[in-house]
Amino acid sequence: MRTSYAIGVDVGGTRTAAGLIERKGRMIKEVHALTPAQAGPFAIVDSIIELIEDVASGAHPGEIAGIGVGLPAQIDFLKQTVEFCTNLPIAGVDMRSLIMSRVRHPVAIDNDSNCAGIGESRFGVAKNVRDFVMITLGTGVGGALFLDGEPYRGSRGLGAEIGHMIIDLGGPPCPCGGRGHIESFLGRPAIAARGREAAAEYKGQALRDEAGGDAEKVTAEDVINAANKGDEIAQQILLDAGGVLGEALVGIVNLLNPKLIVIGGGVGESCALLSERASEVIDEHALAGRRDVRVVQAELGNDAGVLGAAALAFDEHDSREGLHR
Amino acid sequence: MRTSYAIGVDVGGTRTAAGLIERKGRMIKEVHALTPAQAGPFAIVDSIIELIEDVASGAHPGEIAGIGVGLPAQIDFLKQTVEFCTNLPIAGVDMRSLIMSRVRHPVAIDNDSNCAGIGESRFGVAKNVRDFVMITLGTGVGGALFLDGEPYRGSRGLGAEIGHMIIDLGGPPCPCGGRGHIESFLGRPAIAARGREAAAEYKGQALRDEAGGDAEKVTAEDVINAANKGDEIAQQILLDAGGVLGEALVGIVNLLNPKLIVIGGGVGESCALLSERASEVIDEHALAGRRDVRVVQAELGNDAGVLGAAALAFDEHDSREGLHR
Repeated sequence: MRTSYAIGVDVGGTRTAAGLIERKGRMIKEVHALTPAQAGPFAIVDSIIELIEDVASGAHPGEIAGIGVGLPAQIDFLKQTVEFCTNLPIAGVDMRSLIMSRVRHPVAIDNDSNCAGIGESRFGVAKNVRDFVMITLGTGVGGALFLDGEPYRGSRGLGAEIGHMIIDLGGPPCPCGGRGHIESFLGRPAIAARGREAAAEYKGQALRDEAGGDAEKVTAEDVINAANKGDEIAQQILLDAGGVLGEALVGIVNLLNPKLIVIGGGVGESCALLSERASEVIDEHALAGRRDVRVVQAELGNDAGVLGAAALAFDEHDSREGLHR
Repeated sequence: MRTSYAIGVDVGGTRTAAGLIERKGRMIKEVHALTPAQAGPFAIVDSIIELIEDVASGAHPGEIAGIGVGLPAQIDFLKQTVEFCTNLPIAGVDMRSLIMSRVRHPVAIDNDSNCAGIGESRFGVAKNVRDFVMITLGTGVGGALFLDGEPYRGSRGLGAEIGHMIIDLGGPPCPCGGRGHIESFLGRPAIAARGREAAAEYKGQALRDEAGGDAEKVTAEDVINAANKGDEIAQQILLDAGGVLGEALVGIVNLLNPKLIVIGGGVGESCALLSERASEVIDEHALAGRRDVRVVQAELGNDAGVLGAAALAFDEHDSREGLHR
């Protein structure tokens, strides 16, 4: 029977999504649930299994190539183990075996950012691009590297922690314990903090309004919303952030000379100002010969992770079967 | 006839070296000349040809697999063109054709740092390591990436300009025009400037001595020499530089998760303090799971470029002939 479908699962710190995906990337069925982050690894696996069973009902079992699962964790891809995870209690847990023991299909796990990168590479804005860097801006800042047409995960499969590159020696503290990392400028908490500062001043009215009048409650999304509505104070915060993003990306462009940079994640995708400003900075400051790099927003939104996890399942299936993709 | 030899040429801003190299990396004959940097591209080619002819006399022409040439320039490796060069007037000059028209062997050109990386990978400290980063500390700071067992040169073959990654937003100016780049802390001029500052103070006697008594004349090499002789002021300058190097490498380790970091270049190889301190910082600050990366000094010294250029020539020959290396 032709394996026309794969199941992709995207496990987030807050929400888990699963989808039944056709080979060409069409999402046939999608379901969501809150991730039971506090309830321990077995509850998280239970929740994943429930979502998988739900979407699997949309196809004959023989038509399903396999299951890909993206996890918000450092994954040793070759060993298929969870090395480290800050948001969920799954470090050291053999997630792949726990899931595989309860489903009838092969399972592959990967880092969630890698999955999003694979999704954009197969079905989204980076289709047919051999060398690109994806940076995901959300609560944390992550990313994925595609080099010579393949995801590059490093010597131990640990993947691209773009958020934890130093761009400001002795700079502001980072949630990882370091200082002056990209994430300490561009994660949601950093943008929200700039928003709260501005909202506390007289001119921060639009920001206070977004937060229901309370300057102390301004979130990163409030800053983005106010900017998208035209508030100059909020726009300036994001232009500054875009400038920092651009400087960080200049370093990555000089190091890796990619053809494309994809700005993804909830913050990156809802705010064109960030990628536009970053693109200008690269154009001004990258070394000669590298400035033809394009900077674009991701295309697949929240679906990138599910789609990429499914693409991973298709790839693993096809390489087991000796098929070329 | 068996192609037992290749010729490697390493063109520097000051000096050009060429060698006749056996397949296993033994250097049969080596010659040097000053690079006629001011005399224009044809004089530079003349000088390269003279050196090639000199070492080629050590073997029968039929035994020579080809010629590899490392240039201190951004090379588009696929097109085999010189994109950009700060130290020599060869930007846009078709160096490969100019050389090839005057020798009886195929010629391949590459960036000099890439050649040094290839040299260490084939014959030096990075033998059999699939994923490593080489950083060369000299007047400029450059580097090379080996990913999945191959040199990674980026989408246009422009290679790894590690020196031009931002580590300090708004930091000190860099010769490239940027600010706060790795090179603005770790290039020879930056280390010499710290040395001159210290030498101008009472306690900087050892540094003044190295410079013949003139605090204004302290060079990076004077700082290294004083440190190697035990002067604590000079050692502190290099420990500080090693700390900055370490922080920069933390970012690269988090991004690329290499197995090995090779510290090369004149400054990097003459000063163990730098790599030792950098190694400590990585051990303290890199993300979990990545700290098993080893930091070592390069092994081949000035010969790395010549040896790597020769290895490139062997590889190009063997891939033309359909041989596996």
